[in-house]
Amino acid sequence: MDELTFIEWMRRNGAGDLGDDCAVIDCEAARAPMVVTADMLLDGTHFSLAEHGPQAVGYKAIACSLSDIAAMGCRPAAAFCCGALPRDISAETVREIFTGARGLCEKFHVAIAGGDTTAWRRGGRLVLSVTMIGWADGCLPIRRSGAKAGDAIFVTGRLGGSILGRHLSFTPRVAEGRYLAERGDVHAMIDVSDGLAADLAHIAEESRCGACIEAAAVPVAEAAVELAKSSRKAPLEHALHDGEDFELLFTTAPAADADLLADWPFETKLSRIGRIEAGGLAMIGADGSRRQLAPAGYVHKFGEDA
Amino acid sequence: MDELTFIEWMRRNGAGDLGDDCAVIDCEAARAPMVVTADMLLDGTHFSLAEHGPQAVGYKAIACSLSDIAAMGCRPAAAFCCGALPRDISAETVREIFTGARGLCEKFHVAIAGGDTTAWRRGGRLVLSVTMIGWADGCLPIRRSGAKAGDAIFVTGRLGGSILGRHLSFTPRVAEGRYLAERGDVHAMIDVSDGLAADLAHIAEESRCGACIEAAAVPVAEAAVELAKSSRKAPLEHALHDGEDFELLFTTAPAADADLLADWPFETKLSRIGRIEAGGLAMIGADGSRRQLAPAGYVHKFGEDA
Repeated sequence: MDELTFIEWMRRNGAGDLGDDCAVIDCEAARAPMVVTADMLLDGTHFSLAEHGPQAVGYKAIACSLSDIAAMGCRPAAAFCCGALPRDISAETVREIFTGARGLCEKFHVAIAGGDTTAWRRGGRLVLSVTMIGWADGCLPIRRSGAKAGDAIFVTGRLGGSILGRHLSFTPRVAEGRYLAERGDVHAMIDVSDGLAADLAHIAEESRCGACIEAAAVPVAEAAVELAKSSRKAPLEHALHDGEDFELLFTTAPAADADLLADWPFETKLSRIGRIEAGGLAMIGADGSRRQLAPAGYVHKFGEDA
Repeated sequence: MDELTFIEWMRRNGAGDLGDDCAVIDCEAARAPMVVTADMLLDGTHFSLAEHGPQAVGYKAIACSLSDIAAMGCRPAAAFCCGALPRDISAETVREIFTGARGLCEKFHVAIAGGDTTAWRRGGRLVLSVTMIGWADGCLPIRRSGAKAGDAIFVTGRLGGSILGRHLSFTPRVAEGRYLAERGDVHAMIDVSDGLAADLAHIAEESRCGACIEAAAVPVAEAAVELAKSSRKAPLEHALHDGEDFELLFTTAPAADADLLADWPFETKLSRIGRIEAGGLAMIGADGSRRQLAPAGYVHKFGEDA
């Protein structure tokens, strides 16, 4: 599929006004500040086009960016999508990638407002790069750096084993993130992309603090149990260290945690898993023993390179 | 060079606050609206890392985006840079790419405010994707769609033969674009990336008009003359159809053109090359004959695929 055809096709199929060198974004002070996230996904690293199919790939490229906007407590507004296409990709495959991306954008009222497509001369694999902007709509964007000793630590959903499929089909926690920003009692937030332990370490590092979680409180996904059958690891290890859960991990003021659990209006599970402390990362086991929590996550491999 | 190391290195070396899921951009109504451009450059298509070297590659990735912002008459403000790195790339090469990008950003007071780096598991070539935002600072962004019959057509600089080196080292016409936006008498503008004829066709298409240029008025670059010695084409053909000049092509109201030429405060050459008309694209030759102007540009090839 040649590039001009694709841009024209995008325009006819609901992408924004792509007729200028730049997209023009109307800004109002009432919606400010703006947040921006940029991500690049590679075939064989973040997805396998051959294994997962083009619609799932387009969906994931948008969903990852939505999750970043959600983690700031903001409202996603516009996406800019760049793609490097294999020379031999079919027009139908490109359309399905776009269909997967557009469907999720529509669901969250995000405009595809610009982008760029280009093709490898030969031999290259698919690259998708999405930049997404969002608006704080009068709230303060929630940083990673605001956690304070004594804060309760929460996480949405269930963790671990996303490689069995959830990394392609997860629902970004946009509504949940927005709700938390509007409440105003969240101190720090991140989305779980590197793994619970690694992303908790990011909050701890940015906030210059430590954290202690309780093993029994970590919400373990069914997929983590399933994966443990073949991985020789415990389901909890998958919940702690698997990447790409795309759940929200956040901290609240000590006095606010009971109210938040009582008020929580979503079907999405919400778990209080520990407390922010001074010092390093620790976990209290089922037997009450306290041990250091390694901040390592690990990385998925797909397709022929797996 | 692993990814965490690179992000940390970027932070220490003057990139923006990369510690959150998104960059936070302060917006003021006085600077609105905002413009956004997204481009993706591939090794072997838009540059050759082996042939041109890493600093030139980083420079070009930023310069292309600056040129898009310039073509809207806006002030560039922040860049978001994503890179897919070959597995065997050296840390020194990555640093030099960043050095080339950062140097140009600093020159134009653009913050590197975010991004994402990832590495091919094996065999992939370098991909750089830059999204840049800019501000209209109270002017109206200049679209491609505003040209009117009777407008004078102008182009900055000299055209053709950029493949001999200028495509890597050009100075984006940011100051010139901003000056034109502040004057307020430019109807339509684009940067010459596909070639003069092809980009004039873009203005004509978006503005639902035609155009006629005079061959004798087209500013032909020295490089076009040089390239013509080996290409079996006339220098004018290179000026009309070579891509990646990154000059500004724009139209003004009929009454404004003499004033603009008289007022022009830049060393950058400014040429009045024709008029917007009804109908298609045409060119008047040196002999006074009028012929149709094909809107085709052509595409550079670099490195092993050339």
